[in-house]
Amino acid sequence: MCHDMNFVKPDSNSAIGVFDSGIGGLTVVRALMERLPFESIIYFGDTARVPYGVKSVDTISKFAGEITEFLLRQQVKLLIVACNTMAAVAREVIVGLSPVPVLDVIDAGASSAVEATRARYVGVIGTPATINSNAYARAIHRHDAGIRIFSQACPLFVPLVEEGWLDHPVTRLTAREYLRPVTTHQIDTLVLGCTHYPLLKPLLQKVVGKDIHLVDSAEAMAERTAAVLTEMDLWNRSASPPDYRFFVSDVPLRFQGIGERFLGRSLPKVQVVKW
Amino acid sequence: MCHDMNFVKPDSNSAIGVFDSGIGGLTVVRALMERLPFESIIYFGDTARVPYGVKSVDTISKFAGEITEFLLRQQVKLLIVACNTMAAVAREVIVGLSPVPVLDVIDAGASSAVEATRARYVGVIGTPATINSNAYARAIHRHDAGIRIFSQACPLFVPLVEEGWLDHPVTRLTAREYLRPVTTHQIDTLVLGCTHYPLLKPLLQKVVGKDIHLVDSAEAMAERTAAVLTEMDLWNRSASPPDYRFFVSDVPLRFQGIGERFLGRSLPKVQVVKW
Repeated sequence: MCHDMNFVKPDSNSAIGVFDSGIGGLTVVRALMERLPFESIIYFGDTARVPYGVKSVDTISKFAGEITEFLLRQQVKLLIVACNTMAAVAREVIVGLSPVPVLDVIDAGASSAVEATRARYVGVIGTPATINSNAYARAIHRHDAGIRIFSQACPLFVPLVEEGWLDHPVTRLTAREYLRPVTTHQIDTLVLGCTHYPLLKPLLQKVVGKDIHLVDSAEAMAERTAAVLTEMDLWNRSASPPDYRFFVSDVPLRFQGIGERFLGRSLPKVQVVKW
Repeated sequence: MCHDMNFVKPDSNSAIGVFDSGIGGLTVVRALMERLPFESIIYFGDTARVPYGVKSVDTISKFAGEITEFLLRQQVKLLIVACNTMAAVAREVIVGLSPVPVLDVIDAGASSAVEATRARYVGVIGTPATINSNAYARAIHRHDAGIRIFSQACPLFVPLVEEGWLDHPVTRLTAREYLRPVTTHQIDTLVLGCTHYPLLKPLLQKVVGKDIHLVDSAEAMAERTAAVLTEMDLWNRSASPPDYRFFVSDVPLRFQGIGERFLGRSLPKVQVVKW
């Protein structure tokens, strides 16, 4: 969280800004809607340039800065980086631009994992960029340097989720292959380090067995946001119902169907931002 | 092919320009190197914005125009659209900008399929954008309106190829699922309508059986290019060895390994273009 001496308290009735490289961050919006039903939310998904997980650090940082500036122009009171890839490689750029607090899914997921593990053996799965960045390991070790971490990139999980094969033999076979190296260690906690993965949670739980606790970073993010709203006295106190606004940089094929699967409800009017 | 009365014959010693949304088009470069060993080639892969297959027509057209202008500034004698998605939805934009002939993989693959089929039942597989555009069906019907076409989007094939699972149980299971609806019809020819798919050719041949002829659009493209160079008297006559130049808009993770798998040889120095 960015929180220094020059910090000016934002308007608590403003919306929370949430952004992602695409529509995966809608799983975070869904968790926020459920946990914080009186808060307004503005979402930005960079659907014209998704996926970020395979791009270079320079490119990801440039894109993250552009989105941050867009959301700040909407007067948000809090910025949530719902994209693991951006949180992993561009957090400093975002914090450097933002006068409002910045929360991110990696920090939220890492804190949850530290609380959950008894064995202090934690697995982390995510896109290649997230895993190669080692950001979860660093975030977990900031809390407890004694935790052993076993990580695994799972590049096929995002396309499998977008194909809707959430409980499909291909996905089970892929999950078994990816998770075998992680589960041979005695982990008791597995961090789902990508916003697409909450949709695979039932299947992944079956593959790893019920004794391994899965950390859903969307739920972890909603808990962390609630804590920060309390800590900073930023809860929305207005009597009007919350406002939800969705911006994307492109409306791709299959957008509505995939978006609604992620959000868990019908997706209201989506505005397209071109730059 | 763009070829009108105002056409000015390009310099036959210039390079052939090849472009794709990413690195899939390197399968076309490989086929060109083998079929046209004396021709210089300039390749552009838009790796910062890949994949195009899930983006809107407007966005794809804008990106295609930018790449066309970049390659024309390199004085190419011929433009090859090695991206099925761009050929499907942005061909007119590219042709409109180009004073040199424009060839594309869809036209090349369609011609090959028309020559190959006896049953006049043809299957086409590709990305969702390519299949939804119906571009292969239109291109095939320009040659022979009596051919029946059965098409199927295969969104997981690109990530499977990039994961390197070219002969993997997950890929076999996925291929069986995708191809079942197509092969229940009595097709004798299947067009691999995506530049990533040549790497899956051995596996796909096993899945569909040896009686179905697979049209590899990279090979078809090289044949078509040879025919056009002859027809327009554009073969390179210089005595110097051919020059190969590779431009990308980003150097993503795993780029070198995947690129070399596609090109079938070591990938020389790659230049990054930022815009």
